[in-house]
Amino acid sequence: MKAVVTVMLKQGVLDPQGAAVQSALGSMGFDGVSGVRQGKVIELELADGTSEAQVNEMCEKLLANTVIESYRVEMSAVGESA
Amino acid sequence: MKAVVTVMLKQGVLDPQGAAVQSALGSMGFDGVSGVRQGKVIELELADGTSEAQVNEMCEKLLANTVIESYRVEMSAVGESA
Repeated sequence: MKAVVTVMLKQGVLDPQGAAVQSALGSMGFDGVSGVRQGKVIELELADGTSEAQVNEMCEKLLANTVIESYRVEMSAVGESA
Repeated sequence: MKAVVTVMLKQGVLDPQGAAVQSALGSMGFDGVSGVRQGKVIELELADGTSEAQVNEMCEKLLANTVIESYRVEMSAVGESA
């Protein structure tokens, strides 16, 4: 089975990568981009039967810095299209 | 409106970050993690009426290195929950 973990900086935490992307898009002529936030996505291939609670534990302990980042877990069975 | 761009390394491209995460999870006692791929997610706040084609152009020109990365764009109207 598969889990997709999305980790984003919490609201209010300065996101210099996002600000850099926003500035670059503006200077390339893409108007109307009023905000950019950049995060990371981690796709995990897991043994069948792995629970969402275990994936949450992975996030708390390793994948996300919960002081400044929030995370979201989506589980999917094998066979579903990615 | 909002667009969420997910950028992942293409299949077959070495992913050292993912390998490091997989190794760390194993050494922390999380068994059954058979693969990890790490990518990035970029949330864009856009002016109403921005087309998906424009977001694709942003990806091609700035957000993704299309030699080694693939990207996926999801558009959503304002008012939908994130």
